[in-house]
Amino acid sequence: MRQIHRTFKLARAAAAGVRLVRDPSRLDAIIAVARNVVSPDFLRSIVDELSRQEVPAQALAERPRLQIDLDCLARLPRGTLGRAFADHMRARGLDPAALPRMEANDPLSFVRAHLFETHDVWHVVTGFDTDVAGELGLQAFYMAQLPARFAPLLLVAGLANTLLYSWPDRTRRMDEIARGWRLGRGARPFFGVPWAALWSEPLEDVRARLGVPG
Amino acid sequence: MRQIHRTFKLARAAAAGVRLVRDPSRLDAIIAVARNVVSPDFLRSIVDELSRQEVPAQALAERPRLQIDLDCLARLPRGTLGRAFADHMRARGLDPAALPRMEANDPLSFVRAHLFETHDVWHVVTGFDTDVAGELGLQAFYMAQLPARFAPLLLVAGLANTLLYSWPDRTRRMDEIARGWRLGRGARPFFGVPWAALWSEPLEDVRARLGVPG
Repeated sequence: MRQIHRTFKLARAAAAGVRLVRDPSRLDAIIAVARNVVSPDFLRSIVDELSRQEVPAQALAERPRLQIDLDCLARLPRGTLGRAFADHMRARGLDPAALPRMEANDPLSFVRAHLFETHDVWHVVTGFDTDVAGELGLQAFYMAQLPARFAPLLLVAGLANTLLYSWPDRTRRMDEIARGWRLGRGARPFFGVPWAALWSEPLEDVRARLGVPG
Repeated sequence: MRQIHRTFKLARAAAAGVRLVRDPSRLDAIIAVARNVVSPDFLRSIVDELSRQEVPAQALAERPRLQIDLDCLARLPRGTLGRAFADHMRARGLDPAALPRMEANDPLSFVRAHLFETHDVWHVVTGFDTDVAGELGLQAFYMAQLPARFAPLLLVAGLANTLLYSWPDRTRRMDEIARGWRLGRGARPFFGVPWAALWSEPLEDVRARLGVPG
């Protein structure tokens, strides 16, 4: 029964993987791959590694959740992280409420929930757009920052998509992947940063503090 | 019949692709993928693009072949391109004579033969080693320099290998891929460079001339 369940999960992941190679911007496919591929073992190895770094370890202990009120953030002064975030989301018709609400009752589920609910903040702070090139750049950033195999899986899908369906976009995509990797290697750990405490700060200061060149 | 032939070619390419994902350093698998995947259409689009650049266009017209005599190059002074090449090859037990000898009677076959026979020179001038990380870095360099889909195919295989079999090597590999991409974007075209005329020149001068930081 367990075996059948596992086979179904892999089949669903493979089907979602094919959808992803066809269109790497499909959020539903990304979530389906994540749900069916990210095993507790993977998550545990991430937790082990993060526990050895200061900010991530503190977040794992306290498990702060990120509640986002876009209307509230949109009223902050221009140049602040919160305002930049609200502008970024609204310009793209994105709504944090669209992400599935996840439980975070232990370190493993917190890693998953935290990465999901902070993803758009990472976009804003790193400066990667939400088109495929930008998403791939951000995945390279994730790969540099976290010992998780999900980001490189998306990079494989994204490169295969580039090869098969999006050849003219290859230069922008590879530029962003190279930039994301270097940025992620040079920056301080983003995992566990208490973004909610930083909304009113200038984005430039937040970037400088995290080692992201302006 | 044509269809069956094509299906066999694709099946052979897929089998070689699986071997490549398992071990990206297998030269036989790389050659098998190249033989079965690189179609005349692909080569034609590369020729079209290269014809618009000065050095590559001249090479396409003159089709110079690279004959390599390692013993001869090994006698050149230290610091020259030729000596560095001979040292590089001997240190790794590599022999240019091991590569399949290819015909180059027209622009299409010349592209294939030229890329094959200059591959090790590109290693030396770019400074990428011949381990998997270095090969992937050089493939990223190729991808930046040529409109060919073979390099990104090897990058997909290499990333899949990293994900499945070589996780601890991921940082070195991604560092090299990011470096290769940037180097390839910044350097002058390597395709068609008359390496045989440069053997006696200092490697540093060759690099400077081609826009490769020392």
